[in-house]
Amino acid sequence: MTQTMISSPTRDVVIGFGQPFVIIGERINPTGRKILAEEMRNGDYSRVEADAISQVAAGAHMLDVNAGIPLADEPAILAEAVKLVQAITDAPLSIDSSIVEALEAGLAVYEGKALVNSVTGEEERLEAVLPLVAKHGAAVVAISNDETGISEDPDVRFQVAEKIVRRAADHGIPKEDVIVDPLVMPIGALPTAGVQVFRLLRRLREELEVNTTVGASNISFGLPHRKGINAAFLAMAAANGLTSAITNPLEPEIAQAVMAADVLNGADPDCSRWIKEHREPVAEGAGARRRTGRRDRGT
Amino acid sequence: MTQTMISSPTRDVVIGFGQPFVIIGERINPTGRKILAEEMRNGDYSRVEADAISQVAAGAHMLDVNAGIPLADEPAILAEAVKLVQAITDAPLSIDSSIVEALEAGLAVYEGKALVNSVTGEEERLEAVLPLVAKHGAAVVAISNDETGISEDPDVRFQVAEKIVRRAADHGIPKEDVIVDPLVMPIGALPTAGVQVFRLLRRLREELEVNTTVGASNISFGLPHRKGINAAFLAMAAANGLTSAITNPLEPEIAQAVMAADVLNGADPDCSRWIKEHREPVAEGAGARRRTGRRDRGT
Repeated sequence: MTQTMISSPTRDVVIGFGQPFVIIGERINPTGRKILAEEMRNGDYSRVEADAISQVAAGAHMLDVNAGIPLADEPAILAEAVKLVQAITDAPLSIDSSIVEALEAGLAVYEGKALVNSVTGEEERLEAVLPLVAKHGAAVVAISNDETGISEDPDVRFQVAEKIVRRAADHGIPKEDVIVDPLVMPIGALPTAGVQVFRLLRRLREELEVNTTVGASNISFGLPHRKGINAAFLAMAAANGLTSAITNPLEPEIAQAVMAADVLNGADPDCSRWIKEHREPVAEGAGARRRTGRRDRGT
Repeated sequence: MTQTMISSPTRDVVIGFGQPFVIIGERINPTGRKILAEEMRNGDYSRVEADAISQVAAGAHMLDVNAGIPLADEPAILAEAVKLVQAITDAPLSIDSSIVEALEAGLAVYEGKALVNSVTGEEERLEAVLPLVAKHGAAVVAISNDETGISEDPDVRFQVAEKIVRRAADHGIPKEDVIVDPLVMPIGALPTAGVQVFRLLRRLREELEVNTTVGASNISFGLPHRKGINAAFLAMAAANGLTSAITNPLEPEIAQAVMAADVLNGADPDCSRWIKEHREPVAEGAGARRRTGRRDRGT
């Protein structure tokens, strides 16, 4: 039973088979959020802090922190965001950048065992990112594409994942610390995107025995009522072995689907979290009002 | 690719691998519905007709018809209900009774190829129900319990299903016309109920190569916010090979989960049904109003 531990100074989160599904909050990311990008560029992190608090309150176990702002000093901004988020929440972080120097800067200030997001199967990325992960004793998200791009053949994507796991081992990074992202394509463009990913998730769990994560919202790109697709996708992916996802816990439908998947996968002992979130049982058809899936822990 | 055809005089429904998930509307059933039971006993079928129309409008592909009313003339009532429902909708029917004479009466008046609900692995039931199914060229729901009850061991339930398929073949009923119900236990009482059924569904599809159905709402018995569990369960079961379910299409969350599962299983070509049901794509976060999962075909 593969288990990946990620930690802050005061909290450990375990991603693993048989464990509750881990939600990594995706909101702290200026991509496509102009106001947030502008604020971060100008040293205003108030929205970053608010997003951190609201996501944890909504059920995020970890937070992804990304500072990808064009023409900005990404390493400095990412490091600052990591420090500030760590100061106000105990959620372990996923340090997210495509720039190695930014990952380095984030890791340098991070307290605990971080998740580095991400490395691909590209030679140059492997050689740049894996030593950094090893040096900091971190875990890493392994994205299953390489120099040839993203294969539509799930077997090729499996092989890329295998390669990254092997290369990580060469750097002293154990398999438990490699979380594979099998890559989710938009179902609107590729009708087999769902079954491909489900099959891949199953193989990654049963054959490669690694934990997995996905950027869940890609699946619904271009479709209406995206959260309906995203929620069903997460439940179906969890039924095929997915153990974590980078997603938006502020969407009640998504939070509910993940919570229900935990119940159905036997990862919510005595259904106690589900029962607590939805009050005591009510008679079927009694028309009693129920709370939505949204969680209000009263931050 | 196993395909089961069920038909009315004017409509064929195909249950099968790669096909859209088939919803069998569960509402026409007096069990636990005192008013409906009393009306049916007194020859008033207005609620039966209304339930037929509303379920088809909400997306049911087939309708289950049950007339299990204590101390009533079940064969006569079931036959009457079958006739009336066939007169007002073209949905093929599942004729549902634990009384062989009632199944016989329902089949005698049914026009088309019916689904008989159900036979178990009990010797007496096999010998009573299978000849009837064969005589009418119907299909049958095979429930995976036998004289020893419902095993908690999914391997035993698989063996019971195998036995029923074999015995059906002895009566000339092809495997395609046996739809196995692996039996869903309440997750609140049995924490492994979900993973058991998911594993069983996968084996039934991959090894026995049969279609499957479940009484979906059993899974959430005793829990609050049952439809949240039921919706996630159906999506997860569909991800493990389930091809139909006896459930309530009037619950928008259930209708939406099934529709999303079709999209994700590649069974909604070009996502056209999803797009039609949820209007044109809207910009993410634009706050546009969307329709719920409830379908209003305007019957």
